[in-house]
Amino acid sequence: METIKIGWVGLGVRGCSLLRSIILPQGEQVTAVCDPYEDKAQKGADLVTAAGQESPKIYTDYRELLNDENVNTVIIASSWESHVEVSVAAMKAGKAVAVEVGGAYTIEQCYELVRAYEETGTPFMFLENCCYGRREMMALNMVRKGLFGEIVHCSGGYHHDLRELLAYDKENRSYRLLNYLKRNCENYPTHDLGPIAKVLNINKGNRMVTLTSMASKAAGMHEYLLQNKKDDEELLSKTFIQGDIVTTLIKCANGETIVLTLDTTLPRYYSRGFTVRGTKGMYEEVTDSVFFDTEEDRSHDEDWGESCGGNAKKYAQEYEHPVWEKYLAEGIKGTHGGMDWLLFRDFFDALKEGRPMPIDVYDAASWMSITALSEMSILRGGAVVDIPDFTNGKWHLRTDNKE
Amino acid sequence: METIKIGWVGLGVRGCSLLRSIILPQGEQVTAVCDPYEDKAQKGADLVTAAGQESPKIYTDYRELLNDENVNTVIIASSWESHVEVSVAAMKAGKAVAVEVGGAYTIEQCYELVRAYEETGTPFMFLENCCYGRREMMALNMVRKGLFGEIVHCSGGYHHDLRELLAYDKENRSYRLLNYLKRNCENYPTHDLGPIAKVLNINKGNRMVTLTSMASKAAGMHEYLLQNKKDDEELLSKTFIQGDIVTTLIKCANGETIVLTLDTTLPRYYSRGFTVRGTKGMYEEVTDSVFFDTEEDRSHDEDWGESCGGNAKKYAQEYEHPVWEKYLAEGIKGTHGGMDWLLFRDFFDALKEGRPMPIDVYDAASWMSITALSEMSILRGGAVVDIPDFTNGKWHLRTDNKE
Repeated sequence: METIKIGWVGLGVRGCSLLRSIILPQGEQVTAVCDPYEDKAQKGADLVTAAGQESPKIYTDYRELLNDENVNTVIIASSWESHVEVSVAAMKAGKAVAVEVGGAYTIEQCYELVRAYEETGTPFMFLENCCYGRREMMALNMVRKGLFGEIVHCSGGYHHDLRELLAYDKENRSYRLLNYLKRNCENYPTHDLGPIAKVLNINKGNRMVTLTSMASKAAGMHEYLLQNKKDDEELLSKTFIQGDIVTTLIKCANGETIVLTLDTTLPRYYSRGFTVRGTKGMYEEVTDSVFFDTEEDRSHDEDWGESCGGNAKKYAQEYEHPVWEKYLAEGIKGTHGGMDWLLFRDFFDALKEGRPMPIDVYDAASWMSITALSEMSILRGGAVVDIPDFTNGKWHLRTDNKE
Repeated sequence: METIKIGWVGLGVRGCSLLRSIILPQGEQVTAVCDPYEDKAQKGADLVTAAGQESPKIYTDYRELLNDENVNTVIIASSWESHVEVSVAAMKAGKAVAVEVGGAYTIEQCYELVRAYEETGTPFMFLENCCYGRREMMALNMVRKGLFGEIVHCSGGYHHDLRELLAYDKENRSYRLLNYLKRNCENYPTHDLGPIAKVLNINKGNRMVTLTSMASKAAGMHEYLLQNKKDDEELLSKTFIQGDIVTTLIKCANGETIVLTLDTTLPRYYSRGFTVRGTKGMYEEVTDSVFFDTEEDRSHDEDWGESCGGNAKKYAQEYEHPVWEKYLAEGIKGTHGGMDWLLFRDFFDALKEGRPMPIDVYDAASWMSITALSEMSILRGGAVVDIPDFTNGKWHLRTDNKE
C-alpha cells in the first residue's frame, strides 16, 4: 500500500485519544470519520483539520464509510459489540482493517473474522497495545534468548478499577455498563493474554486447548453506587451480573498453563500482573523483578521483595527489546507509556511494506474467544470447555514468532 | 488438662526444629519420642535431655508410644502419608492430638479424621502455623473490623523453591520426592488456604463448594537435576508427574472465589502471596500493601508499586492483631518469624483451659481434602469436583470465627 487513507470508526474517549495522540502525529492521512453520534463524529473531524489535514468526510453509518473510495484502511475504535460486524464488512469491502480490542460475544463471531480474512486476504490487525509494552517486550526478548529456560506457566490480569467509568456510562453515552448488567465472563482478556500468547507462541507451534473459569459474586459496583451515586435510583436498583473477580485457567498443547484474572469493580491499583515462569528464571510485573536461578538470586530468597524487587530496571540495560532500545533513543511518544505509538507504527509499516500483520486474525479470534468460552464455563459452574483451533489445524505448521 | 505430657512422633528436620525451638523453650514436658529411624528418635531424646528434662522414652513404632500411660498429648511431625493414620490412632487411644500440615491422599482419610474426633471427643488441632502469620492476622483483624467491606475474593500460594530438598530427599531419608514422582495435585494447600479460610469463615457460616485444578507440565526438577546433580543417573532417568505450577479455583457457598497456587519446582523467591479483596479495600502480601477506597489511595493508582508498595508497615501501627500486639511487646520468639511459637502457645493454652481447638478437625478435613480433590480434577482435565461438607450440614449453624 503506497498511501494509507484512513476511515476512522468510533470517536468515543479511546477513539479521540488515539486519533489525536498517535495517528495524526504519525502523519497518517484520515479521509473519513464515523460515529453514530453526529457530535462525536464532528469532534473527530475537528481533530483532523486541527492537525492541518483536509476536512474528512463525516459519516454516522459505517456502511457508508466503507463505500467511500477515498478510504483504503479502516480503524475501528467503536463499542465492543460492533467490532466484529464492522471488521467483517470492512474486509469484504476490500479495506485493510485494524480493530481495537475486546472480547467476542460468541464463537461464531471469531469464525466470522477468520472466514472474512481467508476469503478476502485483506490485511487484518488486532490492536492489542500491551503486546508493545516495554516490560512485556523485554520479557519476550529474554524468553527468546532462552534466559528463563523452558517456559511452563504465565499469568496476567486486567486489574483496573473501572467503577467510576461504569457508574457514568450512561452520561458518557458509552457501552460497557450493559455488559456488566447482562454478562458474567472474562470480558477483557487480551491486555494480559496478548503478551502471554506471544511468549508461548500461541497459533505458531502451540495452541490453547481448554479452559475453565470461575467468577466471584458481584458486590463491588453496588457498594460503589451506594457510596458515590446514591441519587441514581435507577442504577442502584439494578443487579450486576458480572462477578467482581473472574479467574480463568487455560491449558496449552505444549503443556503450559495460563491464568487470567479480570478485576475491574473493586478498589485497587492498576496492574496487568504480567508474569512469565521458566525452568531457569522468571519475570514478574507486580514486583517489576527478574529472578534468575543463580546463587546470588537464591541467596536473597525470603527478603526478595525488600531487597531485590524492582531490579528489572537493571536488566533493561542488557535485555531491552531491540524495538524499545531504538524507541528509547528516539524518544517515547504518545499515550499509555508509548505502547500505542509502537502499535500503530508497526501496523502502518507492515501495511506499507506488505508484511504480514504483527497481530493477525488467528491471534484475534483465539484471544477474543476466551470471553465467550469463559461465559459458558462460568454458567456451567466452572466446567471445562474446548478452545477452538481457529487455524484449522495449521498451528503446528505455522512459523513461530521469533523476530 | 493439668499437665501436658507430650509424645512426639516424627523427628526429621521439621520435628527436631519445632522440638528444639518451640516446645522445649515453652517449658512443655516431652515424655516420649518416636521415629521409625532409631537414630532420629535418639536425636529427639537428646534434644529433650539437653533442655534439662528427664530422658524421654524412645520408640520406633508409634503404636507403642500410644500405649505409654505417661503420654496424654501426641504431636505429629512425621511424613505426610502417616498423618491421618497416627492422628486417628491417637484419638482412639484417648490422647489429645496436634498434627503437622499436609494434604490428604483420599477423601476417606478426611472422613476418618472427622469420625475419630466425633466418636472420641478428643481434642484435635491442625498445626497450620501460617494462620498465626503477622500479616495474615493483621489482615484478618482488618476484615473483622469491616475495613475492607464485603470480602469477595482471596488468593494465595505456596511459592517455595523445593528443588534442592527434593533432589536430596533420598540422602535425607525424607518423604516428599515420591509424591512428586507419583502424584500431580495441589499437594500443600494449607499454608495459603488456612488464613484464607479464617477470613472467609469457612465451616462457620460459609463453606467451600466446588473446585477445579489445572497443572502445568513438569519441567523444573529435570532441569535442576541436569544442572546440579547430573551424576545421579537413577533420579535423572525418572519422570516427574507433579506439574511445576498447579492452580486451583474454589467457589464458596457465599459466592466468594479462592485461587490457590502450588509453585515449588521452579526458581523464584519465597512467598505465600496472601491477598484479600473486598468492596472497600485490599491487602496484598507480594507488595506488602493495603489499598483503601479513598481519594488518596486512588490518586496513586498507576504508580502504586513505586510509591505505596510496602505501606502495610504503616497500617500495622493501628491494625496489628491484638495477639501480635501483645507478642511484639513481649518479644518475638522461635522459628518462621514467630508464628510457630504462637501456634503452639495457642494449642497448649487451649488444652489447659479446655477451650475448643483454634484450628479444628473440620478445618483440617476440608483444607486437606483440597489435595485429593485437585488430583481428581487434574486427572479429569480440570473438571469441576464437589468439595464435601465435613460438618455434615452444620456449617451454617456453627458460630463464626470472630474473636
